Amino acid sequence: MLVEGVHFFADVDPQSLGHKALAVNLSDLAAMGAMPRWVMLSLALPDADTQWLEGFSSGFFALADKHGVDLIGGDTTRGPLNICIQIMGEVTPGKALRRDGAKIGDDIWVSGQLGDAAAAVAHRRGELALPQPAFARCRLRLDWPTPRIALGLELSALAHSAIDVSDGLLGDLAHICERSGVGAEVGYPAVPCSADLLPLRDHAPVMRAVLAGGDDYELCFTAAPERAAGIEALSATLDIALTRIGRIVEGNSVTVLDAAGRPLPVKDKGFDHFR
Amino acid sequence: MLVEGVHFFADVDPQSLGHKALAVNLSDLAAMGAMPRWVMLSLALPDADTQWLEGFSSGFFALADKHGVDLIGGDTTRGPLNICIQIMGEVTPGKALRRDGAKIGDDIWVSGQLGDAAAAVAHRRGELALPQPAFARCRLRLDWPTPRIALGLELSALAHSAIDVSDGLLGDLAHICERSGVGAEVGYPAVPCSADLLPLRDHAPVMRAVLAGGDDYELCFTAAPERAAGIEALSATLDIALTRIGRIVEGNSVTVLDAAGRPLPVKDKGFDHFR
Repeated sequence: MLVEGVHFFADVDPQSLGHKALAVNLSDLAAMGAMPRWVMLSLALPDADTQWLEGFSSGFFALADKHGVDLIGGDTTRGPLNICIQIMGEVTPGKALRRDGAKIGDDIWVSGQLGDAAAAVAHRRGELALPQPAFARCRLRLDWPTPRIALGLELSALAHSAIDVSDGLLGDLAHICERSGVGAEVGYPAVPCSADLLPLRDHAPVMRAVLAGGDDYELCFTAAPERAAGIEALSATLDIALTRIGRIVEGNSVTVLDAAGRPLPVKDKGFDHFR
Repeated sequence: MLVEGVHFFADVDPQSLGHKALAVNLSDLAAMGAMPRWVMLSLALPDADTQWLEGFSSGFFALADKHGVDLIGGDTTRGPLNICIQIMGEVTPGKALRRDGAKIGDDIWVSGQLGDAAAAVAHRRGELALPQPAFARCRLRLDWPTPRIALGLELSALAHSAIDVSDGLLGDLAHICERSGVGAEVGYPAVPCSADLLPLRDHAPVMRAVLAGGDDYELCFTAAPERAAGIEALSATLDIALTRIGRIVEGNSVTVLDAAGRPLPVKDKGFDHFR
C-alpha cells in the first residue's frame, strides 16, 4: 500500500509512480525466487483525473507486460490518493527463497549498488547536496527501480536466504538474521555504491543512505562460500553486479565494520513507518 | 478498498468496521458461489491506535474464523484511514456463478430484505425520519452485514446468474442485464423490505433505499422458472427469505412496475463513486 506524502511526493510523475508501484511488488516476488503471474490493483483517487490515470497506467502496464503479469482484479474509489497492489507468483513447492534459511559461514551478497534512491530523498530534503547530474541519476533510481526477477529465479538454486532491500540494507539483513537465528558482519568498504556516491561515501548522510536507506530494491542474499564461483558466473550472465559484503556469524545482531575492521556505530537500521 | 468519509463514517465502531470490511469481500465470493479460503489485509492508519486496532481486529477475525478464512498477507502503513482487502476463494472450474448467464424467461430473485442499510444512511443524513428502534435495527444491518456464503454455494447448481446487492438493486441488476445481453422487469410491490420500512415503502426516500440503496449485501440471482420449488426448499433449509421479484425479458434495460403494472420513473439506479 503506497500513500501520497508517505511513500511518494505529491508531485511525482504518474508514469514513474505506476512503474514503481508495480516494481516494488515484483521485487518481493524476486526476493522469493518466484515467477510473477497475476496482480490486483486498488486505487483511491481524489478525483477522476484522466491525464493522471493515463500516465499511471502507462507506467504500470509497460512493466506488467514486460514480466508477463496479468491484472486480474482490484477496485477504484474516491479518497486520498492510495495505491494498493497485491501480486501473486508461482514457485516450485519447497523451492521458494526465504528469510529463514541463512546458515553460519554463509557469504552475504547484494546485487547492484545501494544508496542512490535514499540519497535522492536526502538531497530533496536538503540533508545532502549532490551535484546536479548525480542527483538526476539518483532520482531515476528512486523513481524507476528495477525488480530483480531473473536474478531471484536463478538464486533459488544457489542461495540459502534472500530479501529485497526496500527498507534499508541493515534493517532488511536484520530480518534475515532474526528469522534464521544468526548474526551478520558487514564490511562497509565492501558495500557497493554508485560512482555518484563514491566520492561522498564516508559522509554521514551517504553512509546512512547506503546502509539504511530504503527504496533500492536490490536483492540481499546469503549463500555457502562454495557457491561463490556460481554466483559470479551468474553476475556475468545477467550483467548485474553481485558483490560479497560480509558473512553470517553466530549471534543475533548485524555488525558493520570499517576499513580497519572496527565496528561502526550504527543507529538508524531501517525505516519504521510509525517512528 | 474502503475509505473513511466515503464508505464509512469517521466515528464508526472499529469492531463493526472490521466485520464489515471482510463481510463485503465475502459477499463477492458468495455471489460467485465460491468457498472462501484466503484474505490479504492492507491498512493505512493515521497513527498506531492500539484500541482501534484491537476493535478492528476482533471484528475482522471473528468473521474470518467463522468462515475458515486465513489471513495470508497484507501491509500496514501510515496515511489517511484506508482499508484494502483482497479475498480468494475456490470454486469448481466452470461452476462459478457469473453475471453473464441470465436467460430470457428467468425469474429474478433476491435474498433477505432490501433497503435497511440505505435507510439508516438516509436517516443519518436527515433525508428520512425513522422511529428510534427502527433506526437502530437498520443501523445494525448497515454496520453488521451478513455475507450469504452458504446460499451462494447452493445456488451454483440452481441459478443462471448472480450478483450481490452492494451498490443498489437496480444498478446491480443492470450489471447482470448488461453482461447477459437481456432486460429485466421488476415489480416494486414484490421487492421485500423489513417490517421497519414497510409502513414507509411508498415514500420516495424509502423507495430509493429499497431499489437503489447500497450496502445490503443480499444476493440477486436469476434462475429458470422450473427451479422455483428447489429455491423455495433452499430458503426453508437455510432459513433465508428468497423472494421472486420479477423476470428477465428481451431488451437491455431494467424496468420497475408499480402495483398496477405501470412503469415507475426511476432515476437513481445505483451508487457512482465519482458522481
